[in-house]
Amino acid sequence: MPDNQKPRKITTLAGGIGAAKFLVGLTSIVPPESVTVISNTGDDIELFGLRVCPDIDTVIYTLGGVINEATGWGLAGDTFESLRWLARYHEASWFNLGDRDLATHIYRSDLLRQGMTMTEITARIAQSLGVRSTILPMTDSYTPTWVVTDEGEMHFQEYFVRRRCAPRVLELRFDGIEAATPAAGVIEAITQSDVVIVCPSNPFISIGPILAVPGIREALQKTAAEVVAITPIIAGQALKGPAADMLRDLGHEVSARGVAALYQDFVKLFVLHESDAALQSSIEALGMRVLVLDTIMTTLADKQRLAQQILALCQT
Amino acid sequence: MPDNQKPRKITTLAGGIGAAKFLVGLTSIVPPESVTVISNTGDDIELFGLRVCPDIDTVIYTLGGVINEATGWGLAGDTFESLRWLARYHEASWFNLGDRDLATHIYRSDLLRQGMTMTEITARIAQSLGVRSTILPMTDSYTPTWVVTDEGEMHFQEYFVRRRCAPRVLELRFDGIEAATPAAGVIEAITQSDVVIVCPSNPFISIGPILAVPGIREALQKTAAEVVAITPIIAGQALKGPAADMLRDLGHEVSARGVAALYQDFVKLFVLHESDAALQSSIEALGMRVLVLDTIMTTLADKQRLAQQILALCQT
Repeated sequence: MPDNQKPRKITTLAGGIGAAKFLVGLTSIVPPESVTVISNTGDDIELFGLRVCPDIDTVIYTLGGVINEATGWGLAGDTFESLRWLARYHEASWFNLGDRDLATHIYRSDLLRQGMTMTEITARIAQSLGVRSTILPMTDSYTPTWVVTDEGEMHFQEYFVRRRCAPRVLELRFDGIEAATPAAGVIEAITQSDVVIVCPSNPFISIGPILAVPGIREALQKTAAEVVAITPIIAGQALKGPAADMLRDLGHEVSARGVAALYQDFVKLFVLHESDAALQSSIEALGMRVLVLDTIMTTLADKQRLAQQILALCQT
Repeated sequence: MPDNQKPRKITTLAGGIGAAKFLVGLTSIVPPESVTVISNTGDDIELFGLRVCPDIDTVIYTLGGVINEATGWGLAGDTFESLRWLARYHEASWFNLGDRDLATHIYRSDLLRQGMTMTEITARIAQSLGVRSTILPMTDSYTPTWVVTDEGEMHFQEYFVRRRCAPRVLELRFDGIEAATPAAGVIEAITQSDVVIVCPSNPFISIGPILAVPGIREALQKTAAEVVAITPIIAGQALKGPAADMLRDLGHEVSARGVAALYQDFVKLFVLHESDAALQSSIEALGMRVLVLDTIMTTLADKQRLAQQILALCQT
């Protein structure tokens, strides 16, 4: 692709593992500096007094080339000595935190207590690990996602990690989101980009919290950028995580169209997996263009191809 | 020693490694529950937002049988992955904190932020690691020791660990000590014990902070208990650490008598090393009895013998 055809600025809305895969492809075919990631912080949690930001860290660790590839979270080659010792003090250890990974949380929590914003801290961590794209938290506020289930209300991580998504989801609550404001640069990234890409992440607990920050959805609706969403649902199933169960439990159609409908007010181009090609016309009926591609990303080549195909269409 | 000859209650004033050695011997010849340790917290430091208490931890880890015997501090078999990763974030890592050890600091810092006192937290940590003696911080307040040197003022740990005691000490300052109060149980432990033992610790930076907490020195002066001090200086040298240099720099005689003079107002029995037997009468002239023993503790048998000999004399 000749340089003059490349979009100058690309902004992405990102959850964790699925988003990070796509971002690896994207940042390997465009200058990484041209990419801004607006990262979900709804899954952030305070553990042992430390602020843990799973989605931000998955994106940074992945782009920094230090992610544990086998799990998709945490650092490659990490050990768990600290967590094991914490168990001697009868501290809950259902959330896995490696020793190296803990350093990130210790560093972040220390800077937060010193009064630094999540935006500044995230930039420092990304820079320290060699990440050249801009990684922005959706907001500087702490707005954890609470899951109201048939077994009571619990922090998203408790539902997701401790309970392995077993309880039935009745409702999602983004604590304090009404009072939150987008982090510095978030609105500009959306309104001043050429392309905005909603990564193949869970629409409820990864993209949902981002959209719930006052001002972000409105910016997506009014931006002149091409707004693209990549389906996280293929043939009625999520590649990873509880997206399909949540679509069902929360009363939506369990399909890529169910996801497209959630983004109907701002997405202009929806990327559907080939196996769902039959949904194309009914998604177009929602008022968006549809691109049918192989959206499953296994190899680096898969990731690059998907990014390339999406960007190519954005220029036509 | 028949049971009826044993002192019922023993209180000790303790720094780190030297004290911990003696306490191992002591608690193996009397019921550990009969021993209370008043621990120096002057060397506490905040690192990465975590409260690190080197002396308390050395005592607890030693009595809990999990100390790194080779170094005298930290946990046996510990790794340093977290600290190495922190260095990627350009965080000072001159203070060694192992991964398991970090769990203690994370746990303590979390409970402190939740409003629990150092006294309660220390008891929990000790109990979790199977320590049956009572370990009390000298105060619940944070009163770090600052060392005024010919190269500027610095936290004690910076002087001790980072600078390896190289700067010349002009003065010691216990930050906020005037406003501190003894932790719950400290005064009672001194006034209601049968024996109070000042461990072979540095008189300036281990025992000095304890004595500087308002009320503790007065309690030592008025207690009916036998108050014993074990010399940390043998033949003009400290077995470990900067005690001899500090005696010199701060204008005291560099000898066991120099230490005895610092404790003159409250110590009734001073334990001198055999090689310093010549000092006996001049220390007696300070108004205290003198016991000449082999105070070097290498084996468990050495530690037990020293404790036994001291307790035997306290009963005569």
